[in-house]
Amino acid sequence: MPNLQFQPLASQPTPAFWTALTSHKLDKAKLNDDEQQITGWLEEGRQIHDHEGPSGSSSSSVVGIDGNISVGGNAFGERSESNPAGSIPITGILKNFNTIEEFRKTEIKKEVFNRVISKILESFSSKDPLINPFLLVTFADLKKYTFHYWFAFPAIVSVPAWTIDDRGFIATNEEDLQELRHLETEMSMKYDRKSEAFLVKGPLGSRSIAPLSEFQSFYDQNTAHQITIAFHDPSSLNQIPGWPLRNILHYLNTVHAVTQASIICMRQGRASIQGDIKLPGGHKNPSNASTSAVGWERTAEGKLASRISDLGPMMDPVRLAEQAVDLNLKLMKWRVAPTLDLEQIANTRCLLLGAGTLGCYVARNLMAWGIRNITFVDSARVSFSNPVRQPLFRFEDCLEGGRPKAVCAAERLREIFPGITATGHSFTIPMPGHPVPPSQSASTCVDIQKLEQLIKNNDAIFLLMDSRESRWLPTLMSMTQNKIVINAALGFDSYLVMRHGIPADSNDRRQLGCYYCNDVMAPTDSLTDRTLDQMCTVTRPGVAPLAAASATELLVSLLQHPLKAHAPAYDPSAAEDTDCDLPLGPIPHQVRGILSQWKNLIVHGPAYDQCTACSPLVLKAYREGGKEWLLEVFARAELLEQVTGLDQLHIKSEKALDEIDWIEDSEDDI
Amino acid sequence: MPNLQFQPLASQPTPAFWTALTSHKLDKAKLNDDEQQITGWLEEGRQIHDHEGPSGSSSSSVVGIDGNISVGGNAFGERSESNPAGSIPITGILKNFNTIEEFRKTEIKKEVFNRVISKILESFSSKDPLINPFLLVTFADLKKYTFHYWFAFPAIVSVPAWTIDDRGFIATNEEDLQELRHLETEMSMKYDRKSEAFLVKGPLGSRSIAPLSEFQSFYDQNTAHQITIAFHDPSSLNQIPGWPLRNILHYLNTVHAVTQASIICMRQGRASIQGDIKLPGGHKNPSNASTSAVGWERTAEGKLASRISDLGPMMDPVRLAEQAVDLNLKLMKWRVAPTLDLEQIANTRCLLLGAGTLGCYVARNLMAWGIRNITFVDSARVSFSNPVRQPLFRFEDCLEGGRPKAVCAAERLREIFPGITATGHSFTIPMPGHPVPPSQSASTCVDIQKLEQLIKNNDAIFLLMDSRESRWLPTLMSMTQNKIVINAALGFDSYLVMRHGIPADSNDRRQLGCYYCNDVMAPTDSLTDRTLDQMCTVTRPGVAPLAAASATELLVSLLQHPLKAHAPAYDPSAAEDTDCDLPLGPIPHQVRGILSQWKNLIVHGPAYDQCTACSPLVLKAYREGGKEWLLEVFARAELLEQVTGLDQLHIKSEKALDEIDWIEDSEDDI
Repeated sequence: MPNLQFQPLASQPTPAFWTALTSHKLDKAKLNDDEQQITGWLEEGRQIHDHEGPSGSSSSSVVGIDGNISVGGNAFGERSESNPAGSIPITGILKNFNTIEEFRKTEIKKEVFNRVISKILESFSSKDPLINPFLLVTFADLKKYTFHYWFAFPAIVSVPAWTIDDRGFIATNEEDLQELRHLETEMSMKYDRKSEAFLVKGPLGSRSIAPLSEFQSFYDQNTAHQITIAFHDPSSLNQIPGWPLRNILHYLNTVHAVTQASIICMRQGRASIQGDIKLPGGHKNPSNASTSAVGWERTAEGKLASRISDLGPMMDPVRLAEQAVDLNLKLMKWRVAPTLDLEQIANTRCLLLGAGTLGCYVARNLMAWGIRNITFVDSARVSFSNPVRQPLFRFEDCLEGGRPKAVCAAERLREIFPGITATGHSFTIPMPGHPVPPSQSASTCVDIQKLEQLIKNNDAIFLLMDSRESRWLPTLMSMTQNKIVINAALGFDSYLVMRHGIPADSNDRRQLGCYYCNDVMAPTDSLTDRTLDQMCTVTRPGVAPLAAASATELLVSLLQHPLKAHAPAYDPSAAEDTDCDLPLGPIPHQVRGILSQWKNLIVHGPAYDQCTACSPLVLKAYREGGKEWLLEVFARAELLEQVTGLDQLHIKSEKALDEIDWIEDSEDDI
Repeated sequence: MPNLQFQPLASQPTPAFWTALTSHKLDKAKLNDDEQQITGWLEEGRQIHDHEGPSGSSSSSVVGIDGNISVGGNAFGERSESNPAGSIPITGILKNFNTIEEFRKTEIKKEVFNRVISKILESFSSKDPLINPFLLVTFADLKKYTFHYWFAFPAIVSVPAWTIDDRGFIATNEEDLQELRHLETEMSMKYDRKSEAFLVKGPLGSRSIAPLSEFQSFYDQNTAHQITIAFHDPSSLNQIPGWPLRNILHYLNTVHAVTQASIICMRQGRASIQGDIKLPGGHKNPSNASTSAVGWERTAEGKLASRISDLGPMMDPVRLAEQAVDLNLKLMKWRVAPTLDLEQIANTRCLLLGAGTLGCYVARNLMAWGIRNITFVDSARVSFSNPVRQPLFRFEDCLEGGRPKAVCAAERLREIFPGITATGHSFTIPMPGHPVPPSQSASTCVDIQKLEQLIKNNDAIFLLMDSRESRWLPTLMSMTQNKIVINAALGFDSYLVMRHGIPADSNDRRQLGCYYCNDVMAPTDSLTDRTLDQMCTVTRPGVAPLAAASATELLVSLLQHPLKAHAPAYDPSAAEDTDCDLPLGPIPHQVRGILSQWKNLIVHGPAYDQCTACSPLVLKAYREGGKEWLLEVFARAELLEQVTGLDQLHIKSEKALDEIDWIEDSEDDI
């Protein structure tokens, strides 16, 4: 009797599978490279009629098409995508390596393969044996969207080999096949799963079937010699059943001592075959016998080698960029800061007042942190001295009078990363001490409203302008709306980066100060009469990127604090370590960087109840007086000193002046 | 007798004058807005024949064209450009305001005008009276290349007015005029200058002339009643002499008691006129009499108003950008750091090894400091995750597999600032522990040579790669060539920025260490088997801009130290202030930034005599072994431990290990 042969299996991973693998790795597995279970499906072999010959001829030949083992978008059980109709679900084992070097090592792959074989053999004694799991080893190069992979269909080699009786396989009776499929449907509804194979007994027309594991109870003494096995067969060949039969037979022999059986190879169309097989010598192999196994898939050229699926070219590059940027951020979380809340950061909408050196650097840093919603306000145009210092602009932006900075900066952000939502608004923020001529008061009111709305639409407001007084109105408005404010100001070789306090929370924590809380003068016109040099901020080129990076990190750290804007100020001198679980460390109120001494000062200060920008007195005057009151302040900054009572303080302190030794206290933080 | 009238002057500043003013302001005057002397020229009025009537007709009329006062590229006496032939040099007074507001203030302009009048009157008693200086007040908006200006030709009003006798002016005798011009040429050669006016005596055909100031000696009793004054007259009118005559007459009257004279108005062509004038009442005015003066130039519309010369549209935008960038840098020097040596910085050629996050940020910062020669080396291509973190790349650079980073970065620099010389080289820097396969050893040798040449061609070498071992070869080569090395390395929320020591100078100062001086192991392959996350540096987005800005400022500070790379290390704990005159402060050896604590550590350490990169032992082995030796080191990094004797140290320390309490010392600075 000739030895039974088996048709090898072929794999078919779909593009959706690689996408699912990518998501799984990024969102679940991360750096975990343990083997894990996935599901795929098997399709039966089939025969189709291949119409040949001249047009109109009815001559045709029959062509067999083998079924593959496929994995798709539902491999990780997460997608509602279902397997193709008529396919049989198959469990697989995925080993996704973290490095290409590991993936390439033969020894490591052998170990994985052997572990699958052990798993198969161990499962044989269970109620639900895992007879034909496939193995898939992968390395996903997520930067290039290239997937290295190798399938194996581990099959235990039977010694001696099974034989087929001399008649060989014959075509299966169609009615019998239909009955078996009908019975199987009933059985799979009962067990809620479809198996790759089942037991059959009884004569044609009154068959009964059972899962393989119920062998003992299914056959009685009368039927024990007429064992029939039906299985979904991926082969389409006339005389050769498919690969899965190997482990099915090994299971039946080693667990249930089967040494001869009738095999029904269930296939599509008229391709099904059946035949009687036998294990020569008729002996049962011990279930724990040392076994050899085969099954690594060969390439189309017949070589034992891995394959590559390169999805790069078919991916939408915009989506690729989004995933690559996400991946970089997630790596921080996976590797260093597991409690980092990236969603919180990504969902923070940022308003950048000023699109100059600070604005450009802050926008870039925010984008690198995954922030996806950035709005600029600036009334200036790009000038020739800007691009070397302001990292969103180019020479061409300076031509013909210069492009409006806010709009240009937003456009440049989209050129860097198309996934960003960036907009720019070109208008001037009105300032105390800068009177608005009557002819412009209507348009100024429109600007005030625009600013108010922009602050409302955003979560964090960055003050990145080049004058002190232009920060006043947004400070006031953000305070009214309880928004996070991050303020950065530059000196020649120093900078100030701070967050503004917001009104005390229910726990009545003491409110931190704002930019103006140290002032005893109202902010007023500091711009008119500035000499040429003062019209641009004179600052060492390194100061702006230092300040901008600090400002961005200050916001991002703040977002990680459970109290957000109410987070207490970090005080390095206080020996508390309550902030030690914060993934990005404690959150200062103010950082004063002094580049010439290569050091930072961490400072904090409370809100001042006579502050011209954030005190309740000013907030009340603004709430009651609205735009009219603002126009008055723009015309006459001293009004703020009246509202806050600072004018009275001045009178008092002038009296006191003669009595004390006066030390000039100069500050150079703009 | 009718009152003598005067034809007002007109000004004509040339574009070359505005360029000269710009250079003067940027390079000399800076923020000094004192009045200063400039020179212009006056042209005589002339008559031309204007051919009219039908073609072929010989009828023509005579048209007078007045001469202007012009200022040109030689106004500040610095350019070899000479005045037009036949023109008369005129001294002027320039007042260039620093702000447009000052320029606009009428009071301030009046004061300046009055100071010029006083200066004129004071000069009358000198040997070289300044009779007709023009006044030019300006405000130069150098960002837009727009010049606001207003000329005045201050003329003292004579009370009573001079009168012309009833005959009026008559045409001057041509031969007399020629004789006078001939005499004047001789006189101007003697005095080495050409005057606006001179004294004349003697009959036609035997004239003699003298400068105005020699009045007393020139006329004797016989000629004192026949005073004749010749002057170069910008007017072209038949009966009206030009504006300069006013102050000439005032001088002659108040200083030399002239009350009547014959006036020769020298003009081009046949336009010259002469006539006899008289001061009614025949009295000499006192020289210090309170005088009123007039002379602000009117616009073409007859208004008393300033004018604007807008050169922006005609300037080469590339040159505009260069000047704007220069101006920004010079403002630092003018306003804050007068000893800052910008030339030294501008002339420093920088080699950036690595065009990733650090490379891109460092290049931008260097460009902002005015460095004009930047070369990148990087073997990678731009990938999708790069642009949001690497501020020279855009989404489009990632498409189709990504552009080579080094070349792309250089191109982007030129797009920012066309004045830069930027190049990129795409090759891999060979590394210890990364064996070179025999098939690649020839191309590796080419790369080694290329790197050596690049280091030779540059002054400062930045190490900005993402692995420890890739810094070894450039460290060694730069040490051999005595180059400045600035090294930056990133951790998750920390960074290291340092300069490498170079061999001790003649004063035998102790050499500072290099990046490897703290190691007791040779740098070796840390890249293979890196998991996905380690293939890109996992770092908070703010860390790279902080490190890059610090690295750039470290170089620039170093360049300001008289000892350059030999500058001693800043030690904040040592209470020395020897560095206090450095314009950018003291220069640390190493700055370790710890973002999670918002602080920097200033560290310094000496060179280690068993260092695997900078010790004399290694330098000697390299000098003797050349490329062959390098290839050995790439194959077997342990060779470095043998060369330096570190291998012996390991044996010793392993013995010592059992005897001490061991505390793991982990460092995370890559």
